[in-house]
Amino acid sequence: MPSISSLGEQALLERIRARAGAPPSWIPLGIGDDAAVLAPERGTFDVVTTDTLVDGVHVRLGRTSARDAGHKALATSLSDLAAMGAAPRAALLNLALPPDLEVDAFDAFIDGFVALGERHRMPLVGGNLSATAGPLVAATTAIGSVAHRRVMTRSGGRPGDELYVTGTLGAAAAGLAILDAGADRAALDAELTECVARHERPEARLRCGVIVGRSRAAHACIDLSDGLADGAARIAAASGTGAILEAAALPTHPGASRWAASTGADALAWALSGGEDYELLFAVAPRARRAFVGALSRCQGLPIARVGRLTQEPGTWLRGPAGDTPLGAGFVHF
Amino acid sequence: MPSISSLGEQALLERIRARAGAPPSWIPLGIGDDAAVLAPERGTFDVVTTDTLVDGVHVRLGRTSARDAGHKALATSLSDLAAMGAAPRAALLNLALPPDLEVDAFDAFIDGFVALGERHRMPLVGGNLSATAGPLVAATTAIGSVAHRRVMTRSGGRPGDELYVTGTLGAAAAGLAILDAGADRAALDAELTECVARHERPEARLRCGVIVGRSRAAHACIDLSDGLADGAARIAAASGTGAILEAAALPTHPGASRWAASTGADALAWALSGGEDYELLFAVAPRARRAFVGALSRCQGLPIARVGRLTQEPGTWLRGPAGDTPLGAGFVHF
Repeated sequence: MPSISSLGEQALLERIRARAGAPPSWIPLGIGDDAAVLAPERGTFDVVTTDTLVDGVHVRLGRTSARDAGHKALATSLSDLAAMGAAPRAALLNLALPPDLEVDAFDAFIDGFVALGERHRMPLVGGNLSATAGPLVAATTAIGSVAHRRVMTRSGGRPGDELYVTGTLGAAAAGLAILDAGADRAALDAELTECVARHERPEARLRCGVIVGRSRAAHACIDLSDGLADGAARIAAASGTGAILEAAALPTHPGASRWAASTGADALAWALSGGEDYELLFAVAPRARRAFVGALSRCQGLPIARVGRLTQEPGTWLRGPAGDTPLGAGFVHF
Repeated sequence: MPSISSLGEQALLERIRARAGAPPSWIPLGIGDDAAVLAPERGTFDVVTTDTLVDGVHVRLGRTSARDAGHKALATSLSDLAAMGAAPRAALLNLALPPDLEVDAFDAFIDGFVALGERHRMPLVGGNLSATAGPLVAATTAIGSVAHRRVMTRSGGRPGDELYVTGTLGAAAAGLAILDAGADRAALDAELTECVARHERPEARLRCGVIVGRSRAAHACIDLSDGLADGAARIAAASGTGAILEAAALPTHPGASRWAASTGADALAWALSGGEDYELLFAVAPRARRAFVGALSRCQGLPIARVGRLTQEPGTWLRGPAGDTPLGAGFVHF
C-alpha cells in the first residue's frame, strides 16, 4: 500500500482539489490560490470557528476508519456553527500528516470530510498540508453566516430560563467505552452500534440551530462538545447566572444506559460529562416556550428534553433523589 | 518550570484571552463563545487562508524561541493575505500541544502571535487547544477583506507581463543553514543575523500587497512561501503561460551570498528554491509599469527587482550565463 510520501505534496493537493469539486456561487475563488475568497451575504455576520482532531485523542485511526475521522473533523466545527444559529458557507482543512500515512487513508479522510460538507452545502475552499513526526492533526475552520440579531450566544441566559437539550446524551461516551472494551462491532445491536457511530461520526444539529436562531425563541445556546455539565456551567458563567440540572430529566441514550449497567460504568456521568454528543443546549424564557417548541417541531423530529433551569444564585448543581450536588466539569485536555 | 498540563485547559484559555485583549468594533463577538462573529465590510469579499507550523519542520523549539514561533505561525498566513491584496481582519489559532510544554513557552508563543497581530490590527478572535502525543502543531486561520475587483490572484498573468519580486531572496534558507551549522548567534554580524531573523520571524508584505492591489497595476500575485521558482511556476500554470527568470537579476540577500560562499552552498538555489522568504511576486503588464512602481514607492522603501517575464510558450526557465535551464520546484513536504 503506497504512502503519501511516495506521491508528493502537489499530487496530494490535486487529490483534494478533485474531491472538493467546483465551488458554488458564493465562493468567487476556492482551492488553488494563496487564499480563498468568499462573498458575504448582505445583512449577515460571518461566524468562524476552528477545531482540532488529533489521532490518538479524538479518534484512533486503525480502529476508526479514516473516512469517519474526516467526517468527525468537520462535524465538530459544524456543531459550533449550529450553536450560533449560523448556516454553513465554507470550510478549510489544515492537515499535519505522518509521511507513512497510506494514500487510501488520505483519500478516505478527505472523502469523509467533503461528503459531510456537501450534505450541508459547505464546500472545502482551502487548506494546508504539512508533514509531522507525530500523529495526524486535522485543524478545521468552518465559516458560516447568520442574520444580524439572529445570532445565539452563551451569554444571553437569564435567571428562570428553562434549559433544553436536543437528542440524547451519553451515547458518544458509551461508544468510546464499547470500542475501548474491544467489542466485536458485528455483534453489537442497533442501539450500541448507534453509540459507536455517535463517537466516530457525530451529526451536528445544524438545521435545528438555524431554525431556533431564526425564531429568536432562545436566550442562549451552546453545543455539548464537552458534556452537559460543562455546557450548563458555561452558559451560566457567561450569562451571570447559576444553573440546576434535574438528574431524572436527562435524556440518556438507552444504549449508554445498558452498556453502563452491564459493565459497571456510570451512565449518569456519561450523560453529564462524557462529552462529544454534539447536541445543543438552549436557555429559553418560560414565556417563549411555545415559540421554542414550535421551532423545534420543524427540526426533523429531533427530540427535545427540558433538563433544568438557570438560577439567580451562582453555581451549577445537579438535583437528584439524594438532594443537590455540585456539578463537575466536562472533558479536559490538559 | 511548570508544564501546561499542571494548569489545565481552562486556565490556558484564560491566559490566551487575557493576552488577546478586547476585540475591535468589527468583531461583535471575539474569544469565548462557540464561534467568533465578524461584521463584513460593505462592498468587500472575505479572504480566508490557513497555514501550519509544526515543531521540527518549520521551526525547532528550543533552538528558536517560542515567541518567534508564535510570530511565525501568524506571519505565514498574513503573507497569504498580502498576496491577495487583502487587509487583515481577524485570526484564529488552533494548537495541538505536547502536555509537557512549559507554561512560559506557551505564554511566549501566544505573546508572539498576538503582538504581530496587533501590529497589523488583526485580533485573535478564537481557536482551539488539544493535547497531542507528537510535536506542537499550530494551525492558523487568517481572515482578511478586499474590495471587489481589487483582489489579486495567481491566474491573471498574461504573456509579456514582467515579473517583479519584493525585498531579497535566499535569506530564510541561509538563516536555517546558519542555525543548522550550530553558529553562535552572538558572533553573527548584522547581515547574517538578518538571515536568521528571516527564518525565525518573517515579515509579511501586507502593506505592499494592499497598496498594489488597490492600484490594480498587477495582473497576478503570489507569496514566496515555497521559493521564487515555485511561485513563478504557479503563476504561469494558473495563468496558462510560461515564465522565464533571469539569474543575474535575482535580489539575493548579501548575507545569503556570503554564507553560501563561505560554506560551499549554492546561494542561487537558496534564492530560487529555499522558500520561506515571504516576499511577493507580481506579474505586471509593461504598460502598467509606471503605475506599479508608483504604488511600490508608497511601500515604506521596500526594494523591488524585475526578475523575469511571463511567456507565451509553456514551461518555466532560468536564463543564466550558460543559457536557459528548466526550473526545479520549491520546498516539498512529502
